[in-house]
Amino acid sequence: MSKNIKLNMSRRIRRTPYTNKVEDHGVSDFTVVNHMLLPKGFKRSVEDDYWHLNKEVQIWDVSCQRQVQISGPDAFKLVQKLTPRSLERMETGKCFYIPILDENAGMINDPVLLKLDDDMFWISIADSDILLWAKGIAIGSNLNVNIEEPDVYPLAIQGPRSEELLCSVFGEDIKKIKFFNFRVFDFHGTKQIIARSGYSKQDGFEIYFKGFEKYFNGIEMGEKLWDTIWEAGKKFNISPGCPNLIDRIEAGLMSYGNDFTRENNPFECNLDNYCKSDSSHDFIGKQALNKIKNEGVNQKIRGIIFNGDPCAATSRPLPVLSTDGLKIGQITSGIYSPRIKKNIGLSMVLKDYWDEGQKIFVNTLDGKKRAGTITSLPFPD
Amino acid sequence: MSKNIKLNMSRRIRRTPYTNKVEDHGVSDFTVVNHMLLPKGFKRSVEDDYWHLNKEVQIWDVSCQRQVQISGPDAFKLVQKLTPRSLERMETGKCFYIPILDENAGMINDPVLLKLDDDMFWISIADSDILLWAKGIAIGSNLNVNIEEPDVYPLAIQGPRSEELLCSVFGEDIKKIKFFNFRVFDFHGTKQIIARSGYSKQDGFEIYFKGFEKYFNGIEMGEKLWDTIWEAGKKFNISPGCPNLIDRIEAGLMSYGNDFTRENNPFECNLDNYCKSDSSHDFIGKQALNKIKNEGVNQKIRGIIFNGDPCAATSRPLPVLSTDGLKIGQITSGIYSPRIKKNIGLSMVLKDYWDEGQKIFVNTLDGKKRAGTITSLPFPD
Repeated sequence: MSKNIKLNMSRRIRRTPYTNKVEDHGVSDFTVVNHMLLPKGFKRSVEDDYWHLNKEVQIWDVSCQRQVQISGPDAFKLVQKLTPRSLERMETGKCFYIPILDENAGMINDPVLLKLDDDMFWISIADSDILLWAKGIAIGSNLNVNIEEPDVYPLAIQGPRSEELLCSVFGEDIKKIKFFNFRVFDFHGTKQIIARSGYSKQDGFEIYFKGFEKYFNGIEMGEKLWDTIWEAGKKFNISPGCPNLIDRIEAGLMSYGNDFTRENNPFECNLDNYCKSDSSHDFIGKQALNKIKNEGVNQKIRGIIFNGDPCAATSRPLPVLSTDGLKIGQITSGIYSPRIKKNIGLSMVLKDYWDEGQKIFVNTLDGKKRAGTITSLPFPD
Repeated sequence: MSKNIKLNMSRRIRRTPYTNKVEDHGVSDFTVVNHMLLPKGFKRSVEDDYWHLNKEVQIWDVSCQRQVQISGPDAFKLVQKLTPRSLERMETGKCFYIPILDENAGMINDPVLLKLDDDMFWISIADSDILLWAKGIAIGSNLNVNIEEPDVYPLAIQGPRSEELLCSVFGEDIKKIKFFNFRVFDFHGTKQIIARSGYSKQDGFEIYFKGFEKYFNGIEMGEKLWDTIWEAGKKFNISPGCPNLIDRIEAGLMSYGNDFTRENNPFECNLDNYCKSDSSHDFIGKQALNKIKNEGVNQKIRGIIFNGDPCAATSRPLPVLSTDGLKIGQITSGIYSPRIKKNIGLSMVLKDYWDEGQKIFVNTLDGKKRAGTITSLPFPD
């Protein structure tokens, strides 16, 4: 029912440098992330979009991945305080996926951190106001930092042909960018950061475009960037797109607010590898996290494969039941995979039931009880 | 164009205890506030909704007004640190409208504060994660507080017949609640806070319903509350509703994220009366605020009345121009008022042009230039 409900527009739900463009391309759905529009669908089905993403190249307006810029003498100290992941060996030019925890070791974001310099970082955030969190911590702790949301609006180029396409625009140095690294490229006299990264399991890049509402020969720079890539992309069969739910779930890529919240700790989210700091590293939530580590967790995110008609994701999680009827989890992101030819989903699953191969049932919104199985992540090929 | 774009649903855009009910009533539009659904339209026009709100009574799902609960020995100290408004004389049972500022005296929220006890407060927030802000400050400052988002989902009853309706449900003591005060009422054995307040210029109440996903005789308590008020409201011609844009703008009620942002200070927002603390009161942003106070501000929010066809609010602010063509502001909330029989809007306006009666022009999205006038707020009767 909710599917056909309109999004009421206002200035508070911020437009991006590319919103005019995605409207021109016939965007049909938006969601809201970080008080900003994120396109969620164009003229074709999620399934057609999935196949295209797997074979060609797409351009995505992911401006809602807002940056929290932390600079100044205490920048490193603050950023390290924000995450259990050690940043000691992080070099300039690297991207690190980092959990951010509150004092109870609850997840409050799972952003990508970019190191621009020894005293300059960007935190590319999921949907919560980490700007306020970082400022609050810095003010309370009297740290000498400057924290701002810079004029940066990421544009993602995703799909197997993205390298070829970006080479044709920015030159062959694009090939030198390793996964989760970035380099700086020229665009009409401006310097733009391009990282090899993105919210898909395909090859891809994110252009951290800087310069909204600045103009080049009378054309707004963001639109110029979009148009330049679009024109060059025509021979690579480019299409407008957005994070694809089938691709994301197959890849086991979690979504903050959907698959985990502040109620969950990083171990429940399988983020153990990002919580391996030695004892000298102090961070918010450390005491709580150590306690949880010692006690162990009672649930973890798992993949679920289940039978029946194609099943759409909604705002209502689908209960997951054991074979004897106990509620053991809930599918928080779910969809039909045309490759696996079954429904797939992500769910926190209770310990006694989280082993691969475990038989379960899923209660779907149509009132049916469907047989399924626990699987590892990413979903098997 | 954006008007017909769907909102993509997911668990991240949280449902409320009343979402099933507003769907049953044919909600047509939602927006997203604090990661939660806020209904923005039902089957009839904003104008019909406005006239109904002015004469009858409406029930609004405003659960998105999330509460930040601050309790513990340092609760008062922290809350006072968060706002330039003095809370020295605030009594239990009172609601205070408070600006919350960052270190630059930029507005980061304009919530209503409820004092539940000397060491227990709720901050009923506009659209930014004040939970993270308050936690960050408290952790950085080592304050002894507990900060949570409690299980509370406000339901607003607005309109001239709201008192009569609530008396029929909760008894005559409803009449004893003064404006911006609250009292506690029984609902099937649960204690519920009811305040005389709301985001309209009509009389009205907000029920701070506590107990989502708790049940009474097999019925979810939030739905029971909705149904109880709905049934009792039939004889008062109750209707489902939501914050009404015409009523809100006429009343000069601002919206955080729309009419002002972190780029603005409280003096620009006409909140001088909430920034009158004496020198002994310390709060975040104090130094910056004093500097701004001494220097004076260059713009303030004003009302604008302008001619021409009815004009709808969108995500694009409408430029406001002086008679000699200088950009002096932008309308961030605007709509046609059927009472004033002209378009009305809110805009920051530059100092040299902010006097009442000043002639201006508004550039509307249809490419027209429309004559208008600066007016005081609320809009004159």
